[in-house]
Amino acid sequence: MEKLYEGKAKIVYKAQDPDKVVIYFKDEATAFNAQKKDVIEGKGVINNKISSIFFQILEKHGIPTHFVKQLSDREMLAYKTQIIPVEVVVRNLATGSIVKRLGIPEKTPFNPPLIEFYLKNDQLGDPIICYEHILALNLANDQEIKTIKELAFKVNQILKDILIKHDIILVDFKLEFGKKEDGNIVVADEISPDTCRFWDAKTGERMDKDRFRLNLGDLAKFYEEVLRRIENEKD
Amino acid sequence: MEKLYEGKAKIVYKAQDPDKVVIYFKDEATAFNAQKKDVIEGKGVINNKISSIFFQILEKHGIPTHFVKQLSDREMLAYKTQIIPVEVVVRNLATGSIVKRLGIPEKTPFNPPLIEFYLKNDQLGDPIICYEHILALNLANDQEIKTIKELAFKVNQILKDILIKHDIILVDFKLEFGKKEDGNIVVADEISPDTCRFWDAKTGERMDKDRFRLNLGDLAKFYEEVLRRIENEKD
Ligand SMILES: Nc1ncnc2c1ncn2[C@@H]1O[C@H](COP(=O)(O)OP(=O)(O)O)[C@@H](O)[C@H]1O
Ligand SMILES: Nc1ncnc2c1ncn2[C@@H]1O[C@H](COP(=O)(O)OP(=O)(O)O)[C@@H](O)[C@H]1O
Ligand SMILES: [Mg+2]
Ligand SMILES: [Mg+2]
Repeated sequence: MEKLYEGKAKIVYKAQDPDKVVIYFKDEATAFNAQKKDVIEGKGVINNKISSIFFQILEKHGIPTHFVKQLSDREMLAYKTQIIPVEVVVRNLATGSIVKRLGIPEKTPFNPPLIEFYLKNDQLGDPIICYEHILALNLANDQEIKTIKELAFKVNQILKDILIKHDIILVDFKLEFGKKEDGNIVVADEISPDTCRFWDAKTGERMDKDRFRLNLGDLAKFYEEVLRRIENEKD
Repeated sequence: MEKLYEGKAKIVYKAQDPDKVVIYFKDEATAFNAQKKDVIEGKGVINNKISSIFFQILEKHGIPTHFVKQLSDREMLAYKTQIIPVEVVVRNLATGSIVKRLGIPEKTPFNPPLIEFYLKNDQLGDPIICYEHILALNLANDQEIKTIKELAFKVNQILKDILIKHDIILVDFKLEFGKKEDGNIVVADEISPDTCRFWDAKTGERMDKDRFRLNLGDLAKFYEEVLRRIENEKD
């Protein structure tokens, strides 16, 4: 397969269909803008499975995504999109960067959920941007931003409701949106413990990439546990 | 007079009227969140004069401000307000922090002008925030943000048009807004070469606090020159 792009956690290949891509999930873990790196055996397989399940759930709820099907342990077939270089973060509880940045107490709930935009640019360290910057930098137009915000809030509601049934609190997560060849905006990239914060509702245990960021260990074990809890939700 | 608050560049005192304050302009200059400090003799006097002129111009154009009158060389009488802790920046050309932060080339024009919000919090280093954070942190409501944005764009247009007649390019500036006791939102604080970027339209020379930030010298001389050019505009 012809490689189109290799990122920190995945490789994107051309698919046979010209309007599709094959996304290959690697075992590499990175944090703090790739200053911290490691390989966690099996992570790619779990993230591909979890991501595929989430995309299927979202599609079932009417959310357009890039997902076509899971091809193999590490490969997902997806619609080829032009990725909008904006990382869209939705926060239900304050934790991580926002706590330091704005001095908000840990675990402060956001009602409504707080949406944030970050410029997807590793060299600049993914700086936070606002609606006005998205327009000024021509990253998306007003209507596209509206669509993205609406979809992000819907995704939050859908995943939050399903996860809590399995004793997982959806604390926050990052989405990427892409424009398909037909112009439609869809949820792209991945939705996994690498891109979400999941807290065990009973124990408070972190079941996400914070285990790596904070050196808590047992990453694959907790990712597996997330998978185990949601496995039957796609049906 | 009873001191209400002493800041980096000004002191706010109680006025005789309970709904007013006396703002005293000091000679202290600070930059980079007060890491760089100096005293520049006469700066307070010039800034009080320039600020008073700008506020009078704005009032003449129907913009509500806190300005009542200039009391003395260093003192301004103003309506007492509850300052909304959001620094509102309007940019016509890219320079300064945004160039590094977003990798935008120096002097890129913004059409429409770019508006940005920063949390007024020295301890946190005045982090950039967006509409959504202003709501989440309860700093202002939706209607108030709309009013602030509208006023900021109007102030930009008014000042830009007047300044260019005097060969000064209004590159960007920072406004603070306050709520008067009657609930009305007004432009407060100061509008001076400490809070604006002014470039000489002919020579490109900086006529603002960047002379201090970048150690270019002759600060008072250039502030005086700004004053000299706009002096007759208030009439
Ligand atoms: N459907 C898609 N079409 C095209 N590109 C995609 C699609 N889904 C995800 N991508 C992009 O592929 C890359 C995925 O690899 P990843 O390792 O996450 O990269 P990065 O290090 O840039 O985040 C990302 O740049 C992502 O934006
Ligand atoms: N009309 C007003 N009523 C009340 N406070 C004001 C008014 N205008 C300005 N202020 C506040 O007074 C202080 C002015 O002093 P300054 O030295 O600029 O302070 P800072 O170091 O906090 O920026 C600022 O905190 C500003 O928000
Ligand atoms: Mg990625
Ligand atoms: Mg100030």
